[in-house]
Amino acid sequence: MTDYTNRAEQIFSRINQLATISEYEVGITRTFGTDAFLQGSTLVSQWMQKAGLETRIDNIGNVRGILKSDAKNTKTFVIASHIDTVVNAGKFDGPLGVLMGLDLLEHLIATEAKLPFNIELIAFSDEEGVRYHTTYLGSKVVVGSFDESLLNKVDKNNISLNAAIETMGGKSELLSTDALAAEDFLGYYEIHIEQGPVLYESNIPVAIVTAIAGQKRVEITFTGMAGHAGTVPMDMRNDALAAASQFVLELEHFAVTNKQDLVATVGKLDVVNSASNVIPGKVICSLDLRSADELKLGLAYHAINQLCQYIADKRGIELSWNLIQETKPVTCDTGLSQSLEKAIEASDIKLVKLVSGAGHDAVPVSQVAPVSMLFVRCFKGISHNPLEDAELADVAAAIEVSDNFIEELIKERI
Amino acid sequence: MTDYTNRAEQIFSRINQLATISEYEVGITRTFGTDAFLQGSTLVSQWMQKAGLETRIDNIGNVRGILKSDAKNTKTFVIASHIDTVVNAGKFDGPLGVLMGLDLLEHLIATEAKLPFNIELIAFSDEEGVRYHTTYLGSKVVVGSFDESLLNKVDKNNISLNAAIETMGGKSELLSTDALAAEDFLGYYEIHIEQGPVLYESNIPVAIVTAIAGQKRVEITFTGMAGHAGTVPMDMRNDALAAASQFVLELEHFAVTNKQDLVATVGKLDVVNSASNVIPGKVICSLDLRSADELKLGLAYHAINQLCQYIADKRGIELSWNLIQETKPVTCDTGLSQSLEKAIEASDIKLVKLVSGAGHDAVPVSQVAPVSMLFVRCFKGISHNPLEDAELADVAAAIEVSDNFIEELIKERI
Repeated sequence: MTDYTNRAEQIFSRINQLATISEYEVGITRTFGTDAFLQGSTLVSQWMQKAGLETRIDNIGNVRGILKSDAKNTKTFVIASHIDTVVNAGKFDGPLGVLMGLDLLEHLIATEAKLPFNIELIAFSDEEGVRYHTTYLGSKVVVGSFDESLLNKVDKNNISLNAAIETMGGKSELLSTDALAAEDFLGYYEIHIEQGPVLYESNIPVAIVTAIAGQKRVEITFTGMAGHAGTVPMDMRNDALAAASQFVLELEHFAVTNKQDLVATVGKLDVVNSASNVIPGKVICSLDLRSADELKLGLAYHAINQLCQYIADKRGIELSWNLIQETKPVTCDTGLSQSLEKAIEASDIKLVKLVSGAGHDAVPVSQVAPVSMLFVRCFKGISHNPLEDAELADVAAAIEVSDNFIEELIKERI
Repeated sequence: MTDYTNRAEQIFSRINQLATISEYEVGITRTFGTDAFLQGSTLVSQWMQKAGLETRIDNIGNVRGILKSDAKNTKTFVIASHIDTVVNAGKFDGPLGVLMGLDLLEHLIATEAKLPFNIELIAFSDEEGVRYHTTYLGSKVVVGSFDESLLNKVDKNNISLNAAIETMGGKSELLSTDALAAEDFLGYYEIHIEQGPVLYESNIPVAIVTAIAGQKRVEITFTGMAGHAGTVPMDMRNDALAAASQFVLELEHFAVTNKQDLVATVGKLDVVNSASNVIPGKVICSLDLRSADELKLGLAYHAINQLCQYIADKRGIELSWNLIQETKPVTCDTGLSQSLEKAIEASDIKLVKLVSGAGHDAVPVSQVAPVSMLFVRCFKGISHNPLEDAELADVAAAIEVSDNFIEELIKERI
């Protein structure tokens, strides 16, 4: 176990070094294509080269290092996560997966492992999508699903994505050449902090991710009748906030009743022209609905829509329901997950299977290759926050599991 | 009845003239002490003079016209409302009461009524309190309860109340001389649009006001734990918005169950740092609680506080409860109200008794004199809005009732 701890210490040391590179003096912010981002990717690229990987930065800014198999015409297994961050981020979201991947490859090199397939380590350049309000720019280029119409999109300083790519030394006309063909793409493995409290609360270091939840995002407007808070009797009101509140509560009840299958959140709620002495006439709120089960997600969506309409009708409130975004659930590959399961059992860790409620690069990758993910416990489930933290012992456990996993994959393929 | 209609038409004509005077080109805005306000009060003062009243503008800008009794050492009965407005106001809120009062006095003069007491008509200069975020400046001077510390208060242009009074031609050191001594103050009568929907919904032109509700205003903060909308399972959440929503709903239920006695409103609700994919960690909302019954207001206040604490405790949410304003209920005078009741019955109008949920100048006046109020139906209960409207026939009915009421008072006193 001491070896795993030493390796974990090196991973933490690299995470800490990367965390010193930021757009602002305080906190960690490295959004796609900025100077700080480039400084960070240069550092990661140097580490990859030093480890002995065939290293390059591709046209979208992904840092990629290959450990080649001696066998000919072999497929490639990808280990990856991202190195861009949100604004005022934690230091583990993304870098943990990249630097654990680097450690895994260093271990394979050090132990002179015979590889029946290539392993490519990728530090994706844009998972958070902060700068261009896009997601998965890096991994979409790798799987060949990049949408070229995005090149004209501009950031808040009016710099186009195309210009940002050039500044980074990339050529947008060559983006398609950076894709890994589906037939060469053996599989995908991503290690990531959980970003939720389940492992923390159950005191377990790691979990297999069985699926990444699909999501539906809705904007809901309740329109009633504004009125004077003192002069309109209770039974003559069409209070838009009372309707919205009933919706929030009944939605919560619906989701709690279905807690194994879905989460539902009203995160935004604005009372239009609010004042303490005015009965709310209009309320606009958000609904964020997620489930790993596509059928259940669809059924829940319709049930919640009906529930909302029922509340509005009962209260004489006008309802506007506007679906503004949806993504389908992604199921992790059964074969890869079984190997990961064996690896966890070999490490004597209680097996926990989780659905990821947050999106990851595994989502676009799943369109061309089998994907697998390992979650590492994080402090109180806090993420996207300077308080984001992980324990050395948990990372050591994740190294052991990942070593076992890669060994298992190698064994299966030889 | 034709006579009442003619008189109502003249009142409407005057209301329409006054409504053309505004601070802005669009809509009606005459806040205390502005050029538009002064232009309006000059017009009202001219009408009073023309009617034959002993007219003056006092030091706080109230326009005051007296119709004197021939008897010596008699008390004064005040008929009043206000001529300042909110921003983008309707034309009836305030001016209706002033110009109906003027019409009543013109009628007494025309019919050469023998008065056993003086009648003073007052157009109060500041009821809405828009400019200095105060209320009842005008009537407080008349009843001798003006707070001199307010003189240093400044408006948004940094002009003090003292300076505003000077600009209007007043002298702040003489404000106390404008007070009517309590022993000379026989009683008070104010006609006002209802500003609520009860008369409109029940198709009745006027109502007696039995009381003006007391009010308690509270700022409530629910603090839970923010979290990722995708990664925190339903049963591990401390959602501040769910707690606030439960409060809004249970408050509504509480108030509906007590509908004869109180109204309760959450008008403002802010989700702090809200985002559609973040579980709300903090919600700040307002509570506006009103009742005409002081005991019930107090009991309800404590019951609602306990309800709120119970919801917070149940959900592991921290509660902050901050009482930021309270006013006591005012009961209209039984004797005056009985006379007003007789007047309504004499006019063959179904007797309706209402509590005023909105505040009026009768509140400060009630500290020194018996008060009475008549509500006139307004269109859909809409007020503080350009859509504010009243029917000619309803104003005619209110004239008949008011004539009867004043006659009744005269009869009682002779």
